Amino acid sequence: MLPSQRIRNIVPEGLSDGWGVFMKAREMIAQGQSVIELTIGEHDIKTAPDILQAMQRSAKDGHTGYAPVPGTQGLREIVAAHHQTQAQVPTSAENVLITPGAQAALFAAHLAACNPHDKALYIDPYYTTYPGMLRALSLNPVAIAAKASDGFQPNGASLNAAAQGAASLLINSPNNPTGVVYGQETLEIIADTCREHDLWLISDEVYASQVWSGRHITPRSLPGMKERSLIVGSMSKSHAMTGSRIGWVIGPEDIIAKLSDLATVSNYGVVGFIQDAAEYALHLGSSAFISVSAPFERRRKLALEILKEFPQINVIPPQGAMYLMLDIRSTGLNGEAFANALLEQRKIAVMPGESFGAAAAGHIRVAMTVEDALFSKALKSLCDFATNLASK
Amino acid sequence: MLPSQRIRNIVPEGLSDGWGVFMKAREMIAQGQSVIELTIGEHDIKTAPDILQAMQRSAKDGHTGYAPVPGTQGLREIVAAHHQTQAQVPTSAENVLITPGAQAALFAAHLAACNPHDKALYIDPYYTTYPGMLRALSLNPVAIAAKASDGFQPNGASLNAAAQGAASLLINSPNNPTGVVYGQETLEIIADTCREHDLWLISDEVYASQVWSGRHITPRSLPGMKERSLIVGSMSKSHAMTGSRIGWVIGPEDIIAKLSDLATVSNYGVVGFIQDAAEYALHLGSSAFISVSAPFERRRKLALEILKEFPQINVIPPQGAMYLMLDIRSTGLNGEAFANALLEQRKIAVMPGESFGAAAAGHIRVAMTVEDALFSKALKSLCDFATNLASK
Repeated sequence: MLPSQRIRNIVPEGLSDGWGVFMKAREMIAQGQSVIELTIGEHDIKTAPDILQAMQRSAKDGHTGYAPVPGTQGLREIVAAHHQTQAQVPTSAENVLITPGAQAALFAAHLAACNPHDKALYIDPYYTTYPGMLRALSLNPVAIAAKASDGFQPNGASLNAAAQGAASLLINSPNNPTGVVYGQETLEIIADTCREHDLWLISDEVYASQVWSGRHITPRSLPGMKERSLIVGSMSKSHAMTGSRIGWVIGPEDIIAKLSDLATVSNYGVVGFIQDAAEYALHLGSSAFISVSAPFERRRKLALEILKEFPQINVIPPQGAMYLMLDIRSTGLNGEAFANALLEQRKIAVMPGESFGAAAAGHIRVAMTVEDALFSKALKSLCDFATNLASK
Repeated sequence: MLPSQRIRNIVPEGLSDGWGVFMKAREMIAQGQSVIELTIGEHDIKTAPDILQAMQRSAKDGHTGYAPVPGTQGLREIVAAHHQTQAQVPTSAENVLITPGAQAALFAAHLAACNPHDKALYIDPYYTTYPGMLRALSLNPVAIAAKASDGFQPNGASLNAAAQGAASLLINSPNNPTGVVYGQETLEIIADTCREHDLWLISDEVYASQVWSGRHITPRSLPGMKERSLIVGSMSKSHAMTGSRIGWVIGPEDIIAKLSDLATVSNYGVVGFIQDAAEYALHLGSSAFISVSAPFERRRKLALEILKEFPQINVIPPQGAMYLMLDIRSTGLNGEAFANALLEQRKIAVMPGESFGAAAAGHIRVAMTVEDALFSKALKSLCDFATNLASK
């Protein structure tokens, strides 16, 4: 029997989803080949032992039953307090729903914002799950190109052209894959578009703690935006807790109440002892996430030094997150062909830009997720490879 | 701004969702009153220490990153092996998707089976989240009454009348709230209906390890049914791991592959170190879940003995699960009025039958989830209260 249309087309037939290089690298590693893996956004460190101990303490103390469906009071409160400090907008536990990770938060936020067949906007380049997620929700996904020539920032004309009749707009700053952090000006344009066209703004801010230049601004802080913004955050990137699957949606109280109804029927809440561990981790304050993000800031500096020596490779210096987006169009190859050749000839795995949308074509994304010396070595080899191709 | 229609109507405005007694009991307990709580299906024991140790071992060993999206190979394999033993149908890891709990599994299974606005069938009495879940998925929920006079088993005529034009049928055996376990005959009728009307059968089997008379039969074992059955299971009830949020869907390989695409965009997989704990727990074999279910079997015996002395209260002896469904129509009250009066006058909290659908009106559900002596005392008090009312 055929499954539903909505689930059949999450990954459309015949469309490359850009994970070929990733899969090939995995196979090569499984065969015992030595491959430097710079594809996915997984830290090269583990969750800190004291956070795991906090989890075990909670479980041993008997918190092994159902947790309150919208999240534990303690975790909701500290997430609200952190956001309030950042947004300077009153935020309480009632504005927060805890979810099993940020992907679940994005899914729930869109379910709350859009009915089936609604037009849902997102910015290209995008995180790879976005269009498939919108299709799974029976939405009509429409990409808005943020061109490399615009520094990967969306412009007002493109936003307004697409916004007519749409229900929602999904943004992601600090951005994966580009490393761009939207400034006040870009966010004002986005907010204008949302207010004018009565859109929900769904803001994926999972890299909020990893900003290397400029500062993170949440659009919920802009005038008239807290009523229409659903902010998605997570413990994954900030605290190296990817495997713990803890995220959240922050939004208007009435929407969070409805999202709590949704949580009752879609997951019946999130693991309580992991929420206790997340609460512990957030109480550690900024030192906890600074230590997690420090390697990426360090490697970013290393990378920008190395790239100075290879003028044929353009880079927009990443302002945040854990990736480099490199323009390899001078090689004459597209991102996918380059990534395949690089894997084959230099045993280095990176993501083709095309995996993140048409606007990232001719680019590759390099995750800064191996230790500094190996990272430098890999990046030099990559740049040397690209320069040789470009010089042919 | 208003949220989407689909999320607005999960709990319809003005419709009592039957949780009033539960909420009132919580308030009374918070005020320091002594209330015997027999409402929800939460064990009176915690997750076993050795299972928690297995979790901590996995986390300490560094399994704190993303787990494979469809589930760890080890957990998928042992879930498949257990199901194969029960169903006598070939089942491998590729037939299993791990989900963050059974509720998430039910949600995903319906998303896979039905497009927006499809007619989705379920049996009344039902587990309370069912109709709201179907509404959240933009489905058209249609209840099929399984009458008390039919021993709460659905009959062929009702099934066939409803099946015309439907996309799916959701069943739950062993049943919450009624304790009924569907026998071969009922399951054959259900399977006939599904084959004839080309329906997906979604079978919620979370109480499969708690059967006190007869035996659990999974409909996936019936001819022509493995192609159209999505079986939902979980660690919650069998291993007292409600808070760990581990469940699964078992189905055809091609559907599980699509459900894995859905998992990528809806939750990005499930906590790996908890999956390792679940795998450990399943490797313990039947002793682990027999010790968890033994108290319910014991209290069921106690209850049937006590009920003999109160002939004005009818009970269909529960064949499985952790509840008693008592017919209190002789009191002249409906379930909600009775439950409210019982809470007020005897400080005992039970669920009104109406919370589980019209077919359970005039009944109450008693969770057998407090220790034996207290349970006996509470049940005697309840029966005495009902008999007094009935004798007036």
